[in-house]
Amino acid sequence: MKTDYKISYPSSRKVYVQGGMHGVKVAMREVSLLDTVRIEDGKKVHEPNAPVMVYDTSGPYSDENVTIDIRNGLPRLREEWIAKRGDTEVLDAFSSDFCNRRLADKSLDAIRFPVTNMPRRAKAGRCITQMYYARQGVITPEMEYVAVRENMNNEKMGIPTYITPEFVREEIAAGRAMIPANVNHPEAEPMIIGSRFLVKINTNIGNSALSSGIDEEVEKAVWSCKWGGDTLMDLSTGDNIHETREWIIRNCPVPVGTVPLYQALEKVDGNIADLTWEIYRDTLIEQCEQGVDYFTIHAGLLRSHIELTKGRLTGIVSRGGSIIANWMTQHGTENLFYTHFEEICEILARYDVGVSLGDGLRPGSIYDANDAAQFAELSVLGELTELAWKHNVQVLIEGPGHVPMQKIKPNMDEQLKHCHGAPFYTLGPLTTDIAPGYDHITSAIGAAQIAWYGTAMICYVTPKEHLALPDREDVRAGVVAYKIAAHAADLAKGHPGAQVRDNALSKARFDFRWKDQFNLALDPEKALEYYQIGRLGQESDHCTMCGPHFCAMKLTKEMHECANVKDADAL
Amino acid sequence: MKTDYKISYPSSRKVYVQGGMHGVKVAMREVSLLDTVRIEDGKKVHEPNAPVMVYDTSGPYSDENVTIDIRNGLPRLREEWIAKRGDTEVLDAFSSDFCNRRLADKSLDAIRFPVTNMPRRAKAGRCITQMYYARQGVITPEMEYVAVRENMNNEKMGIPTYITPEFVREEIAAGRAMIPANVNHPEAEPMIIGSRFLVKINTNIGNSALSSGIDEEVEKAVWSCKWGGDTLMDLSTGDNIHETREWIIRNCPVPVGTVPLYQALEKVDGNIADLTWEIYRDTLIEQCEQGVDYFTIHAGLLRSHIELTKGRLTGIVSRGGSIIANWMTQHGTENLFYTHFEEICEILARYDVGVSLGDGLRPGSIYDANDAAQFAELSVLGELTELAWKHNVQVLIEGPGHVPMQKIKPNMDEQLKHCHGAPFYTLGPLTTDIAPGYDHITSAIGAAQIAWYGTAMICYVTPKEHLALPDREDVRAGVVAYKIAAHAADLAKGHPGAQVRDNALSKARFDFRWKDQFNLALDPEKALEYYQIGRLGQESDHCTMCGPHFCAMKLTKEMHECANVKDADAL
Repeated sequence: MKTDYKISYPSSRKVYVQGGMHGVKVAMREVSLLDTVRIEDGKKVHEPNAPVMVYDTSGPYSDENVTIDIRNGLPRLREEWIAKRGDTEVLDAFSSDFCNRRLADKSLDAIRFPVTNMPRRAKAGRCITQMYYARQGVITPEMEYVAVRENMNNEKMGIPTYITPEFVREEIAAGRAMIPANVNHPEAEPMIIGSRFLVKINTNIGNSALSSGIDEEVEKAVWSCKWGGDTLMDLSTGDNIHETREWIIRNCPVPVGTVPLYQALEKVDGNIADLTWEIYRDTLIEQCEQGVDYFTIHAGLLRSHIELTKGRLTGIVSRGGSIIANWMTQHGTENLFYTHFEEICEILARYDVGVSLGDGLRPGSIYDANDAAQFAELSVLGELTELAWKHNVQVLIEGPGHVPMQKIKPNMDEQLKHCHGAPFYTLGPLTTDIAPGYDHITSAIGAAQIAWYGTAMICYVTPKEHLALPDREDVRAGVVAYKIAAHAADLAKGHPGAQVRDNALSKARFDFRWKDQFNLALDPEKALEYYQIGRLGQESDHCTMCGPHFCAMKLTKEMHECANVKDADAL
Repeated sequence: MKTDYKISYPSSRKVYVQGGMHGVKVAMREVSLLDTVRIEDGKKVHEPNAPVMVYDTSGPYSDENVTIDIRNGLPRLREEWIAKRGDTEVLDAFSSDFCNRRLADKSLDAIRFPVTNMPRRAKAGRCITQMYYARQGVITPEMEYVAVRENMNNEKMGIPTYITPEFVREEIAAGRAMIPANVNHPEAEPMIIGSRFLVKINTNIGNSALSSGIDEEVEKAVWSCKWGGDTLMDLSTGDNIHETREWIIRNCPVPVGTVPLYQALEKVDGNIADLTWEIYRDTLIEQCEQGVDYFTIHAGLLRSHIELTKGRLTGIVSRGGSIIANWMTQHGTENLFYTHFEEICEILARYDVGVSLGDGLRPGSIYDANDAAQFAELSVLGELTELAWKHNVQVLIEGPGHVPMQKIKPNMDEQLKHCHGAPFYTLGPLTTDIAPGYDHITSAIGAAQIAWYGTAMICYVTPKEHLALPDREDVRAGVVAYKIAAHAADLAKGHPGAQVRDNALSKARFDFRWKDQFNLALDPEKALEYYQIGRLGQESDHCTMCGPHFCAMKLTKEMHECANVKDADAL
């Protein structure tokens, strides 16, 4: 087993920017740049370029001062903050029967995470969610952390911003943003999901009955964080879900989400009819105490909605949705997540686990987009949002799916109309059905648009969507495609400082500072690799696309010197 | 040298749909599908699925009845139509001095295309452009061809459409669409570029001084046609441009575009100051007589615009733009393409070569998007459009570039405002600067949007953009990304019949007709490859993403059978 994962980026160093309130130290990546060199009166003149801060999801893996051993797990950054609040207690035993049976099973010792951290829970009568604190007017270290984090370059560059700790508090209090922050996942660095903040991306990993071991899942988790995944969903459905998840959470510097239904169904050997509230409840508690930060729960798909899927081309394509629809059909009763929703919220609130209200009826084809089934469920999600907020549980609303471009905006409009401003979290959407093998692209097109319209987090799609489980390279391709979509939306929305990185990279391009161009890229390794293929070993002041006679930027420089036009270098 | 290129697609056959007017035979690809199999009362019931027609850019390469030998060139489909009109004559000699010098140079025999076709030109006093015919009320075979071609599935599927030969004629007459159709490129199958038709994609190939031989360029051309490139620009700047282009045109079933300036500059050894109208004019004639279907000409970049690029971050990034700007700066005179524009139009009209008015001042970075320089040039392009139309020359307007999403729509609005409805043809646009190595994706996001807003053709960008010349696999990646963007726009615009392929693929997906799903995909080979990686050799009624217990579509089927809900199969 590989235990010493490290992440490195070229010409970059890990820096920690300190907050002025709680003294939080916010991790960022600083990319240092070469000088711009110009010829003036026959002499070389050097002009320094300011380093650029980059939003950093790689956690301690990229800190050369931290020793990584995945058998110990990551440093527990938030533990002190949580303990200091005095409103939680560390339990003597796990509260889930299933968890206790797994712990007692000696045959699992070989695959068990070596360290056991006892679970933390709200003291009786106390509420411990970030939403609760925000509503009480309290700015937590988590809120301060994300405020600093969202303002990477702004202070240095003199860019005005509205994102203050108080602004974060207001957005959380209003339910317009979520900080997924289970008290049992203190390893995660705080991040915020809301339409007035940087657009975030989620990556899905997880094994199925057919593939993938613990090693591979941990590796994919680290890989996702390296390329920029903001949250990680573990969608495992195969063996040893409990143990796999423990390894992932203990080593994951970003919030982790799950669909607890998947594991609950494994516990009844996949027999949907055998699923009970008691088994599901125990699964929720098991995962709350492991540290899952948000749960996808398909509570809005009601019995009456099933009829609405009749005329669909592709029926129900959400795994969770199809399971709960089958359960309702077999039992002839209402969705148990809907009927037990307040009880679910009570459990989640004790650990500050967020709820991501699943869209079990999302369209699986262009034909089915924006139909009555989809929007009927969305309206129930709005109703559930208010219930969750009553319990101070933080909420995300999940969205589609397959949607042609002209129907994307109506999705955002309907979500805003029904869901009281809760952050929207969409899968793509995929804008055509005809490109299996390239659905990271069909969906990045839709994701960029819906994020621009206000979606707070976009769930990545990999090239293997519809075809197979993603491997490491697919995770990279999916993450980078979605970082592009998210960044395009940040630019379009005018997020303060979002353009700093584009400007720095473009200036490097104009200056022929090739290394800086690569180092500022979302994927420096790929850019360098392609450049080297073309360059065939030569250093040059022109690129291989144009050859020496035809480089437009070289010609511009020559002309501007000739015409004595001020160079853009001063920017 | 490989001479027998063939293109094949799985479960597909080449069909020719006959037009009712001129009897044109329009090439299409018909994908045959497997039956949907259902269990009713314990018995298998087969329901046939109608074959799907797919727009086909592969020309005779995919016709098993045609023998391909690239030393002969493709069959000359349009030659009879052109000759029959009686308004052109075949010349005894080439009109370009340069061309005649190359023909006389024995040292080039080894790389010369073996067959010499004498050039065709309008008879004195006659006008032979598709725009001229359209304005006279004449529906040409070319117009009928594209009308049939744009309606692949509609007749069979009973989909109402407005795209008739008369509608095509009206759009051409009004300048809102172009059929690039040089009388010297009769090998090309007619296609139409206009906002009321299917969105088209252009691919760029071509060698630079640093790389790429004739073989490789022909291979890339065929490869581009295989994946769906609608037109092809040969942007060669290295050695033997003339001979390379001859090989490409004679073997290219789609229209070919060039930037004649590149070759003109090679003729003066790259010394911009030495460029003259006479050299450029001879280059135009040389290429008109070879069969280039449209020329990019940077005639709208005026002397007064150069000043406007002063404050830019990345100056002038168009090769043609930077060359002509340098030429003006060095000569202290106005753009020679602008001052000679009517003479240019007179030449082009004699061969029915279209003009693609280049955007020499397109922005090369997010920072420079939609600036005064860019829009000043665009407004001149509108002025030139009217001049070209006066000569019955068909026009495209080129557009950016690097543009953040919120500034894309204003580009289309400005183009509509200034350019009298002439088709817009954009490079991307790229929606961020920060993803070298993935610019097919940053730009597909922008291309899909601008095409939805009305851009008629989008010029592909490959993963190697900004870094190196694309190889074969990059061409494939770029073409497929752009086919996705174009198709997403066709769906969003409601092009008649565009959704037929999506529906057929999605139904195949829901039926677990895996092979049909792959065969209907934009890239069947890639889809199959990924599926096989995941499947590990097993046949199954579930996909490897979900595993056997969790397939949403399988569960939907089970539930619908249980609930006796009508299956979507009837669609």
